[in-house]
Amino acid sequence: MAKHTLDQLLEKMSSGDNRALARLMTLVEREDERLGRILEAIGPRQGHACTIGVTGPPGAGKSSLVDGLTTLMRQAGETVGIVAIDPSSPFTGGALLGDRIRMTKHYLDSGVFIRSMATRGSHGGLSRATKDVIKLMDAASLDYIMVETVGVGQTELDVMGTTDTVLVTLVPEAGDGVQVMKAGLMEIADIFVVNKADRDGSQRMMTELSLMLELKYSNRPAEESAQPPWRIPVLATQAINGTGLPELLQAIRDHHQSSLASGELVRRRSERRREELITRVEYEVRKRLTVGARTDPELSRYFDAVGAGTLDPHTASHQILESAALRDEAGPSA
Amino acid sequence: MAKHTLDQLLEKMSSGDNRALARLMTLVEREDERLGRILEAIGPRQGHACTIGVTGPPGAGKSSLVDGLTTLMRQAGETVGIVAIDPSSPFTGGALLGDRIRMTKHYLDSGVFIRSMATRGSHGGLSRATKDVIKLMDAASLDYIMVETVGVGQTELDVMGTTDTVLVTLVPEAGDGVQVMKAGLMEIADIFVVNKADRDGSQRMMTELSLMLELKYSNRPAEESAQPPWRIPVLATQAINGTGLPELLQAIRDHHQSSLASGELVRRRSERRREELITRVEYEVRKRLTVGARTDPELSRYFDAVGAGTLDPHTASHQILESAALRDEAGPSA
Repeated sequence: MAKHTLDQLLEKMSSGDNRALARLMTLVEREDERLGRILEAIGPRQGHACTIGVTGPPGAGKSSLVDGLTTLMRQAGETVGIVAIDPSSPFTGGALLGDRIRMTKHYLDSGVFIRSMATRGSHGGLSRATKDVIKLMDAASLDYIMVETVGVGQTELDVMGTTDTVLVTLVPEAGDGVQVMKAGLMEIADIFVVNKADRDGSQRMMTELSLMLELKYSNRPAEESAQPPWRIPVLATQAINGTGLPELLQAIRDHHQSSLASGELVRRRSERRREELITRVEYEVRKRLTVGARTDPELSRYFDAVGAGTLDPHTASHQILESAALRDEAGPSA
Repeated sequence: MAKHTLDQLLEKMSSGDNRALARLMTLVEREDERLGRILEAIGPRQGHACTIGVTGPPGAGKSSLVDGLTTLMRQAGETVGIVAIDPSSPFTGGALLGDRIRMTKHYLDSGVFIRSMATRGSHGGLSRATKDVIKLMDAASLDYIMVETVGVGQTELDVMGTTDTVLVTLVPEAGDGVQVMKAGLMEIADIFVVNKADRDGSQRMMTELSLMLELKYSNRPAEESAQPPWRIPVLATQAINGTGLPELLQAIRDHHQSSLASGELVRRRSERRREELITRVEYEVRKRLTVGARTDPELSRYFDAVGAGTLDPHTASHQILESAALRDEAGPSA
């Protein structure tokens, strides 16, 4: 594999070679010097896949849900990419290993591509790398790409912003609707799923979510549009035995059609690329500063003065931005 | 209060006026245009306070610990600042409100200053604002500043990096030592606290932590130093009734003395300021891009091309960095 040129790898990936896809992902994740060329090459091959974010509190059964949806998509002849965001902390809970092991039944299926990514120590790098991994999967012509997070912290909310359709998965034990609102889930959900729906309290939770959605709609200004606005469904599932999953998959397809027809999909994807530009500049700036603090005479003077306490970081940051110091580190990507 | 000039506010804060301190914090948090002037003014007044980070999984009793330590510090005539980082998600647990309410007994004490900060939607802003709030407390000559987080995610680890002494608080139920290692707590702890030490398993957890620390020390290369290296203590507490807290406070004082004597304190604070410079440039870059995408003709061309998908974000970010576009948005802070 190592002997292939980048062009050969890209060619192989396009023809469905999962090993080439995996190899490209590794290059992208470790920010290989060829990253720029890879992203330019796959740029025109974007937009085929329907991307789905799956989030919710730990223990809501997100992995089982992704697992079950994958099975249904495969039965329909569709290919699937799965990006599993692993937790930054083992204290955030969940039977992680067990969940992941269950996914192994799809590992032998060449129509399913699974990639795990870790959140810890990422400093914005996860967000960058996740977006690039999704792009590679899209360029590899996978039909559905599901991104599964473990918790519902800021990193996870950011990651959800990179998908077309967001499933918020809850369980009756997860608390009440007020907590859902406080976690910022009301704003990001396209579909609510109450999983483990055989448990006590699931009907109460579904009713509560529906009422809160009604409240949200009633406060929404009337829009002039030929397309009726998407009404967020609240679905009951038991992912572990497949109950409710065909309906969930249908809701996912409906949402995709709706947002395609209303122009929402184009708007979201455009907004996402604009946000990605900001993240990428930030990321590049951090990289240049980290290296430049050691290697660039001008930057290291700033860092030394700030380190010694003779210059405050706020003033220094403005001076660096007004100077040309950030421009010297590297030319455009090779 | 609104009628005071910035100089008057700074003057009042220096003489121990908590209302002036609170007002300055609000300016700093909402990134008032006077932020630069505030930071420059307090720059020379840094380094008095001993800053303490208190972290650990939800439910470990961190608030009770901070509460109890505050009482002891006040009895010793020392002033205390408390920064409580509120969770990004209600699902991360903890009896938040109850804990916070307990703190109210200190609200009437002018020698204690409490500030709550929210993590959600921060995009690096929390980290920036927390550092500035700590600086203000330091400039206000508070003796101890305790920063308490709710969870142990990446944001929380970042915040811990801004303090002189890090307490990692665990409870017997928190899991085993392997989880502590996986969460990255072994690397950041200066003092381990096993709280709720009356519960089953606390002795086992303390033994396990001590053994893991021994392992860490035995792998540490011998250092040529007059100062013996700090040995991380493992202390048992019952914060709720004060058991073990005098010993904990002594350990905090010992750690401060040790790191002062060994030069570790100077090294850490310098490293922290250097890291802060990077964060601040990143933050400023995001701000300029967000505004410039709408108002700057050159930047908006980049954003429009990326939004339309005709230019990939990676290439655009390099072009922006090679151009002077980031420099045009604003001059140095007023």
